[in-house]
Amino acid sequence: TKTEVFTITEMREPALEKDNTDKKTRIFEQYVQPCLVELLGTMLFVFVGCSSVIGNVGTTGAIQPAVAHGLALAVLIMMFGQISGGHFNPAVSLCAYLCGGMELLLLVPYILAQMLGGMVGASFAKAVLPPGLYANSAGGALVVLSNDLVTVTLAEIIMTMFLTLVVCMGAINSQTQTPMAPFCIGLTVTANIFAGGMVSGACMNPARAFGPAVVANYWNHHWIYWVGPIGGALLTVTFVRFVLGDRKTRIWL
Amino acid sequence: TKTEVFTITEMREPALEKDNTDKKTRIFEQYVQPCLVELLGTMLFVFVGCSSVIGNVGTTGAIQPAVAHGLALAVLIMMFGQISGGHFNPAVSLCAYLCGGMELLLLVPYILAQMLGGMVGASFAKAVLPPGLYANSAGGALVVLSNDLVTVTLAEIIMTMFLTLVVCMGAINSQTQTPMAPFCIGLTVTANIFAGGMVSGACMNPARAFGPAVVANYWNHHWIYWVGPIGGALLTVTFVRFVLGDRKTRIWL
Amino acid sequence: TKTEVFTITEMREPALEKDNTDKKTRIFEQYVQPCLVELLGTMLFVFVGCSSVIGNVGTTGAIQPAVAHGLALAVLIMMFGQISGGHFNPAVSLCAYLCGGMELLLLVPYILAQMLGGMVGASFAKAVLPPGLYANSAGGALVVLSNDLVTVTLAEIIMTMFLTLVVCMGAINSQTQTPMAPFCIGLTVTANIFAGGMVSGACMNPARAFGPAVVANYWNHHWIYWVGPIGGALLTVTFVRFVLGDRKTRIWL
Amino acid sequence: TKTEVFTITEMREPALEKDNTDKKTRIFEQYVQPCLVELLGTMLFVFVGCSSVIGNVGTTGAIQPAVAHGLALAVLIMMFGQISGGHFNPAVSLCAYLCGGMELLLLVPYILAQMLGGMVGASFAKAVLPPGLYANSAGGALVVLSNDLVTVTLAEIIMTMFLTLVVCMGAINSQTQTPMAPFCIGLTVTANIFAGGMVSGACMNPARAFGPAVVANYWNHHWIYWVGPIGGALLTVTFVRFVLGDRKTRIWL
Ligand SMILES: [Ca+2]
Ligand SMILES: [Ca+2]
Ligand SMILES: [Ca+2]
Ligand SMILES: [Ca+2]
Repeated sequence: TKTEVFTITEMREPALEKDNTDKKTRIFEQYVQPCLVELLGTMLFVFVGCSSVIGNVGTTGAIQPAVAHGLALAVLIMMFGQISGGHFNPAVSLCAYLCGGMELLLLVPYILAQMLGGMVGASFAKAVLPPGLYANSAGGALVVLSNDLVTVTLAEIIMTMFLTLVVCMGAINSQTQTPMAPFCIGLTVTANIFAGGMVSGACMNPARAFGPAVVANYWNHHWIYWVGPIGGALLTVTFVRFVLGDRKTRIWL
Repeated sequence: TKTEVFTITEMREPALEKDNTDKKTRIFEQYVQPCLVELLGTMLFVFVGCSSVIGNVGTTGAIQPAVAHGLALAVLIMMFGQISGGHFNPAVSLCAYLCGGMELLLLVPYILAQMLGGMVGASFAKAVLPPGLYANSAGGALVVLSNDLVTVTLAEIIMTMFLTLVVCMGAINSQTQTPMAPFCIGLTVTANIFAGGMVSGACMNPARAFGPAVVANYWNHHWIYWVGPIGGALLTVTFVRFVLGDRKTRIWL
Repeated sequence: TKTEVFTITEMREPALEKDNTDKKTRIFEQYVQPCLVELLGTMLFVFVGCSSVIGNVGTTGAIQPAVAHGLALAVLIMMFGQISGGHFNPAVSLCAYLCGGMELLLLVPYILAQMLGGMVGASFAKAVLPPGLYANSAGGALVVLSNDLVTVTLAEIIMTMFLTLVVCMGAINSQTQTPMAPFCIGLTVTANIFAGGMVSGACMNPARAFGPAVVANYWNHHWIYWVGPIGGALLTVTFVRFVLGDRKTRIWL
Repeated sequence: TKTEVFTITEMREPALEKDNTDKKTRIFEQYVQPCLVELLGTMLFVFVGCSSVIGNVGTTGAIQPAVAHGLALAVLIMMFGQISGGHFNPAVSLCAYLCGGMELLLLVPYILAQMLGGMVGASFAKAVLPPGLYANSAGGALVVLSNDLVTVTLAEIIMTMFLTLVVCMGAINSQTQTPMAPFCIGLTVTANIFAGGMVSGACMNPARAFGPAVVANYWNHHWIYWVGPIGGALLTVTFVRFVLGDRKTRIWL
């Protein structure tokens, strides 16, 4: 069927399929464990991300935040991809669902877990980094760096399109799947921060924006970090479903 | 035969070989999809590349552009290599064709798709980055940094020779092929930017030069970014065909 | 049984299982070689780590130490993981034991080997780096950068939790094991140094702290680098044993 | 037998074993091609290495040279390892021979090819980089940065020991061999440059030192870059042959 499942069920232990598995265990492994993993992974990603931004003083450029975000994400997807798919990003979950890489039932719980994980991660960053630096950097929240909001939104759309394309082609689309997908996804984040970090902060992830916005109570232009990433994800879905996907994924030809 | 095909057809879905495949689908998958992938991939590569150059102010050295170009290229080849070979570079397409890694029929369409992709990517960089920075950096176009044009051309030849050697040996020549070739190719770009970025900008790719040259209307010494990369590619072809290739690739011994 | 063994015995040469193996050889391979490998690996890790901190003058930010620690650790685990598991860190050994990835018999010898390796590595850093820089940096010992010791300890707990989670999920837990675990572990160290390096130095490893503390005789708040990493390791054990582990690893459901 | 061969013959095309292979072809593939590959690879490595040092002005720290050397080496070993073993370093060839990873017959030709490659690579760096920068940096030759020559030699010994250990354990010793060895070897160079670059330049490779020494006619303390790396290689041989190697490699127990 069209609605194939990503890495979530594919790599399950064989015993899972059997009827004699305890029902509680099956529910835990299919629903509870993946959601907890999304929460924990997003927490660690946002903790590292916010801390690397808050502490990036006296250095030049975006190298430290760019590399920290990219590596943390790559490692977390490599670790948790087999359990939850390793999204840690509502735009990625939406895109994975629409490209046939995730069950509908998990979509809303994943997004809630990611938003909660973002808040917890941002709280730990606040607890740990020096208050002066925390205040100066809006707690690692995303800050719009241009007056032209259309430009900023466009930047988020393009960069998230790139990111979600790597997710769909590298981890879902069977013709192009690769075990290196986690590194590809993380390193796309690094490259994008070098490309558009000085325009929009290169968020590409509403949960990364939402967590520190809540904790630092910083909401300036927050909508951009939902509209841009979701727009980019929908663009990717269009490309994959009409042009880039394999026969199983394409909805024509 | 000598004219082996790279990754383009090798990894196709098995159904493709069967006669009962719709002819329209077969044409789409063998000609249309690869060209669209070259366009999209070159667009994303040139967008990230130009943006990382335009925004590289207040930092020291070439780390941000070097890493951004390298990672974006590595990831795009990893994603799209199975569909189009993942060239995103006219010098690479020429070299792949001459080393037996690509059909002649696709050569001109690929190069046109890459040039168009470069223009679109450079346009997005112009749309997104602040106009002041855009103007200061010639929109990410390649800028010759020495009066000695022979030196600059030689730098492009040597660096492109290295880059295309990695493509031919890592992705085409069967004795030395490796699934890590996409990362090797991208990281060669990073290393070369550290080596020759301050001489010629370390372009190694006419499409990377052409896109922003059109968009920013900056054509100073533009020919160097065609002559150098093509010269380097031909040098690689000579080495691979006479010395480095396996028995199937070498044209003697 | 619950007490599965990590990579230590799994990848042994087949002959090892046979009875006709010399007993001395068997003891050498199962106990002596792993301990010597932990000593040598920790020595090289601490040598590179301390030297990269001592020599990080005139540069901005933590890029050099962050990348040096991460790459050295990644490479050493890749090389020696098949022999000793590649811990080089008492917190990792404790966590591996408690998650079923290591024999109890080796726990104390490993920790002693790691502490000794840390001392030898820090001595080589002292022998090699210029004395002026050595004195200015406390010989690469971990320096607490905040007056709020609870915060510093919390930072070490969170970061070590992340690091040991990557060890347990990537190298021990069979559902999520990956051959890329060594790189994931090393790159987690790099990301964490960008996140919390300016708070606590981002140690995550009592042997990394102990070696230069002895050699430079610098003991300020040294306990934090035992309490924090061990706390983080115990947190990981709790997560893995109750929530994240596969059926064999989880102690319920 | 003890004298196993590395990657040189192992991965040969099957036809090679057959008697009906042309003798000229066999000699070409077993002796001529590997030596030419060592020459070409060392040339590209030394070109990138010297250029990245010569052009490292106005930046802080060793990031650019460290990353350029490491990535260029990693990529070259990945490409050419199947043909020649991918040494590009006399200390590595010596160590590989003594650990059973290379034929004696090739040892001297390899070292000569590497020295010649270093000279050609350094010449290209001279031809391409601006003369002012070239003169300021001794043409990328290794410069001793301390008056204490024992310390400098010791630094080269320790760092080369680490590097050659990664070669022997990752690419020769069958228990610990890994397809990621080329990346491990390159990234060890990067880590070592961050550790000891400011003491001795972190050469670890007599051919890397010899090439620019000839071209720039800079011979101050040149002997250190032969004695240190060879000392480190011999230390590795001792460790591998007595302690770290698998049963086939160890000469006791
Ligand atoms: Ca279809
Ligand atoms: Ca032939
Ligand atoms: Ca259980
Ligand atoms: Ca033996």
